[in-house]
Amino acid sequence: MILVIKNDSQKRQLDNLISWIKSLGLNVHLSHGENSTIMGIIGDTSLLDIDLVSSLDIVETVKRISEPYKKSNRKFHPQDTIIQVADAKFGGNNFAVIAGPCSVENEEQIISIAVDVKAAGATALRGGAFKPRTSPYAFQGLRADGIRLLLLAKAETSLPIVTEIMSVTHLDMFSDVDVIQVGARNMQNFELLKELGRSNKPILLKRGLANTMEEWIMSAEYIMAEGNNRVILCERGIRTFEHYTRNTLDLSAIPLIKELTHLPVIVDPSHASGLARLVAPLSLASAGVGSDGLIIEVHNNPEKALCDGPQCIRPNQFADIMRRIRVILPLVGKESAF
Amino acid sequence: MILVIKNDSQKRQLDNLISWIKSLGLNVHLSHGENSTIMGIIGDTSLLDIDLVSSLDIVETVKRISEPYKKSNRKFHPQDTIIQVADAKFGGNNFAVIAGPCSVENEEQIISIAVDVKAAGATALRGGAFKPRTSPYAFQGLRADGIRLLLLAKAETSLPIVTEIMSVTHLDMFSDVDVIQVGARNMQNFELLKELGRSNKPILLKRGLANTMEEWIMSAEYIMAEGNNRVILCERGIRTFEHYTRNTLDLSAIPLIKELTHLPVIVDPSHASGLARLVAPLSLASAGVGSDGLIIEVHNNPEKALCDGPQCIRPNQFADIMRRIRVILPLVGKESAF
Amino acid sequence: MILVIKNDSQKRQLDNLISWIKSLGLNVHLSHGENSTIMGIIGDTSLLDIDLVSSLDIVETVKRISEPYKKSNRKFHPQDTIIQVADAKFGGNNFAVIAGPCSVENEEQIISIAVDVKAAGATALRGGAFKPRTSPYAFQGLRADGIRLLLLAKAETSLPIVTEIMSVTHLDMFSDVDVIQVGARNMQNFELLKELGRSNKPILLKRGLANTMEEWIMSAEYIMAEGNNRVILCERGIRTFEHYTRNTLDLSAIPLIKELTHLPVIVDPSHASGLARLVAPLSLASAGVGSDGLIIEVHNNPEKALCDGPQCIRPNQFADIMRRIRVILPLVGKESAF
Amino acid sequence: MILVIKNDSQKRQLDNLISWIKSLGLNVHLSHGENSTIMGIIGDTSLLDIDLVSSLDIVETVKRISEPYKKSNRKFHPQDTIIQVADAKFGGNNFAVIAGPCSVENEEQIISIAVDVKAAGATALRGGAFKPRTSPYAFQGLRADGIRLLLLAKAETSLPIVTEIMSVTHLDMFSDVDVIQVGARNMQNFELLKELGRSNKPILLKRGLANTMEEWIMSAEYIMAEGNNRVILCERGIRTFEHYTRNTLDLSAIPLIKELTHLPVIVDPSHASGLARLVAPLSLASAGVGSDGLIIEVHNNPEKALCDGPQCIRPNQFADIMRRIRVILPLVGKESAF
Repeated sequence: MILVIKNDSQKRQLDNLISWIKSLGLNVHLSHGENSTIMGIIGDTSLLDIDLVSSLDIVETVKRISEPYKKSNRKFHPQDTIIQVADAKFGGNNFAVIAGPCSVENEEQIISIAVDVKAAGATALRGGAFKPRTSPYAFQGLRADGIRLLLLAKAETSLPIVTEIMSVTHLDMFSDVDVIQVGARNMQNFELLKELGRSNKPILLKRGLANTMEEWIMSAEYIMAEGNNRVILCERGIRTFEHYTRNTLDLSAIPLIKELTHLPVIVDPSHASGLARLVAPLSLASAGVGSDGLIIEVHNNPEKALCDGPQCIRPNQFADIMRRIRVILPLVGKESAF
Repeated sequence: MILVIKNDSQKRQLDNLISWIKSLGLNVHLSHGENSTIMGIIGDTSLLDIDLVSSLDIVETVKRISEPYKKSNRKFHPQDTIIQVADAKFGGNNFAVIAGPCSVENEEQIISIAVDVKAAGATALRGGAFKPRTSPYAFQGLRADGIRLLLLAKAETSLPIVTEIMSVTHLDMFSDVDVIQVGARNMQNFELLKELGRSNKPILLKRGLANTMEEWIMSAEYIMAEGNNRVILCERGIRTFEHYTRNTLDLSAIPLIKELTHLPVIVDPSHASGLARLVAPLSLASAGVGSDGLIIEVHNNPEKALCDGPQCIRPNQFADIMRRIRVILPLVGKESAF
Repeated sequence: MILVIKNDSQKRQLDNLISWIKSLGLNVHLSHGENSTIMGIIGDTSLLDIDLVSSLDIVETVKRISEPYKKSNRKFHPQDTIIQVADAKFGGNNFAVIAGPCSVENEEQIISIAVDVKAAGATALRGGAFKPRTSPYAFQGLRADGIRLLLLAKAETSLPIVTEIMSVTHLDMFSDVDVIQVGARNMQNFELLKELGRSNKPILLKRGLANTMEEWIMSAEYIMAEGNNRVILCERGIRTFEHYTRNTLDLSAIPLIKELTHLPVIVDPSHASGLARLVAPLSLASAGVGSDGLIIEVHNNPEKALCDGPQCIRPNQFADIMRRIRVILPLVGKESAF
Repeated sequence: MILVIKNDSQKRQLDNLISWIKSLGLNVHLSHGENSTIMGIIGDTSLLDIDLVSSLDIVETVKRISEPYKKSNRKFHPQDTIIQVADAKFGGNNFAVIAGPCSVENEEQIISIAVDVKAAGATALRGGAFKPRTSPYAFQGLRADGIRLLLLAKAETSLPIVTEIMSVTHLDMFSDVDVIQVGARNMQNFELLKELGRSNKPILLKRGLANTMEEWIMSAEYIMAEGNNRVILCERGIRTFEHYTRNTLDLSAIPLIKELTHLPVIVDPSHASGLARLVAPLSLASAGVGSDGLIIEVHNNPEKALCDGPQCIRPNQFADIMRRIRVILPLVGKESAF
């Protein structure tokens, strides 16, 4: 960590700062320039609060040299982490596709979609049981019943199931779920993250609506700090001023996340734009950019979907996307499992 | 709700849509233009899912005519809601100031600050017990112990206390807290909001990092829909591309929120910029824009604050801000209680 | 255009509004609901100022039904516009790649890069002569001399040249330039756009730093309204809160722009992220999403580039990208010319 | 400037870098840590291109210690710059108000408004002659004729006039204008800025739609670098995801700009929100935050304004705002001239 010390600082203040830093087991290196003094802090600065340091009256600015994340940091874990759930493999040279309806609606619907997406190459089934809705008056999902229906579809197709949790208090209901999803709005629900860090299930961590990549990685770090290393990151679009799309899909995040961390990272092209007709082009783009997979909303009757219909595609459109992705994968060092 | 129907729609599709809308107890008014057909939906459309409607193949765009919120809507509740907590009055022609340290650190600290801010005119005490921190390695607050210390300060000064909740599972610990704060990162933690809607305590609801005013009001609506009408909104800055400030304080939100809802709305000038030296000018600006109050971080030793130090001011600076605000209040139809 | 009329409007005001609208040659259709009156305006509303209409005291909100752009609108021109410049074809089932250094530096540099990128399949040469730099103290480009050097490279390779204009007063110097580029910072320099609309050269119009797709199309409309229909749009990233990348590349814009307009749209993966190592993945993603081409910065010695070095790649990396893109093109209905 | 050198750099690369930096007349200080080498560059680094330095393969990150602006920098010019135009004084303990219609429409309109705003305390008259409009089909202003009408109003009231320039080629028409305004969309029209730097007129430089404070200051620096030190900055709202307001007024910018530069900075509350009913609260907030003045749109008949009507207030509302601001000014160390 590097501190720029203000020019008008008093020696007493500087001495106080130095002794405090040394008391934390860190070392200090000073370099006096014409207009400012630069202090380098040497040692494990990850425990040092950058906000606290910036607050000191004699400090002009602070620059962190090392990243604030450790367990997820590729520097300390150069090989890709590969997370396997039944036949779905996330990370490394694998490309995994999770597909299914936005909301679970009934047995017939979820099983029929599960069968269709499996046939097209999906290796996991998604389906919303608990739905985070902006309005308290909107449909909130079938909740426990939705999970029960997902398990029926799993029994039928042997696809592992992925579904979203919205509260620590619901955790018991997720005991048979294969991958627990944390939605964008809960990305910084830190108490939930800690609890999931104590579970033994893979976590699909969506990027928050307006969170930086660093904050997103730090949320993965919350889970990993508690002992659960099986975190799959998921880019789903960020909020910008543009209003033709619901969110702006940030595909640059994919290669950057893979450089900064060893975790798998996939893309959700359905929520990103909120427009069914963009799912195909954004899926192909995601494959081209080097994503470790996709999570796609597929519905057998999008016009009747109880929620989020605009972003759902039909099974035949899904199969067509899968066929085209298969051609792209070898270009980015991926093997197709479908 | 107004729907623009695509020009190439088939009559069968349009008829299907009309019967479905009528089956929901709503009425339809059609108007055929040269390039498009406009459908007006008449009745209580607040239960109609705008996403679902937009998803229909024959619908080009949808425009809501009436707001999606009801209980918080000023149209149905023209007079200001006034929320009183001990001597602190939020809303109407009142101006209430909550002050205190970012984090509760120890008994001496919290009591001494409480005494100081009360003397300067604050009518409620804030202090973080549970701290939402980006990093799992950063100080997470004294938690239950922090609440205990706040209650000591309350006993000493009779100031009501305001502190943040981070999980539904912590609710028991908040039984003696006077106002429960929901932080920006939990603004759309809907399960928490519902639970707080069932409590009998006033809720201080901060605006999310990147949430629109409408989403913010909808989160208040989540609390009110469960029966708790005592919601105080708090603007604390939104995330933009600017990096000299931590957030961009959106003061235009104050008069707009007061126009759209009947709820009190206050400003947090400390978190907004993250810079102590901006607290005074932003506090005066908040008074000028018509805010119902402020929540300000005050520390007796900002340089030693365990967290968020950069945004804390000292008690004497706080007293000076209060003196100046007193002059502004009559200009905006407010009475000073200090 | 649809207007929602406020409930408390007086009949006199409404009558005034209706006569004013009719005086413009438009027609009015009224529909009285329980809580509001809806007015549909029928006819060519593109000349009606939506801001003016919104300003009227009796108007609650306004919704445009038809787009404000005409000449660029796909509704009135369903087939793709194809713009050919020497061997470079933009639009339709073509994929064109413009490549070259950020700044033109000297004869040896520009010719050597031109030869390399042509060999790899580029059909146009880019190179900055006038450089828009944030700081007045930074290198501003070789200006007229830069254009002269580009023309030498054109003579050597017969690649058409693309370079940026920064002022109407420089137009004379661009008489031998093949495609005139308008940079992001000048996207709404309307006087420049009008003047370019009177020229007979294809215009490469970059999206502004923080402009919506609609504003971008309206800027194309400025050029087309003056008679020049040869506009190539170029997505180059928008400004968001993320700071690991310089800009956030908005690939969803590509399929949307192609749906809304008939103009070709290409991607600049170099400026988007500002990181050389993201150029390859973002180029592949751009091909996958259906872009009509790319504009890529290539330098024979990125470490010595006078500006913007971080985003330049070497000729051999460029050739490798081209090889991989060739595989993707047939998946999105494009023919490879390289 | 501080460089963090990558750990795996070769000695040869580092030596090359050091000799290059020394060849520029700068000095180097190296400090070897466990995981990285830190290089401090000592001397006048303002001419060093931070982009170029970041691009070097061996450089991990770069941090500038000193600001990239000089002439506008308060460090080198601690006292406030005061710019006087007739009776309007900008900067220091002055508070100046510019008022007038969005667009100049006719002689009667502009003179009548000029008389009214002068009576209420305005010391300068604004009025748009050249209008930057998103659509080529919208009213573009009376242009030369608008300036002529402004000069009539000046002759009548002796108020100095402020109006916007949109192209270098129009400069001749501005010879009698007192303050030349650069609009948000031209904030980075660098060729225009340079030309205005060579004029002898005060420049009102609006902040760009999505520009950081640093970029805004750098644009002032463009003008000052050419010799014209009379730059008045103007905050007018930035673009965010919020859509209830046209822009988000960034009032935190005011105290920060005054800390970083010695230039006067005023606020435009009219364009910021685009809503007439927010002009009063935002004006009071601007006074409270320490602004050096305001530029307000006033119209004698907002419902008939040819453009931007939604944000115009009436003369009596303007007078009321002025009366209230007068009370706030002494709180922020300002003298009222009205």
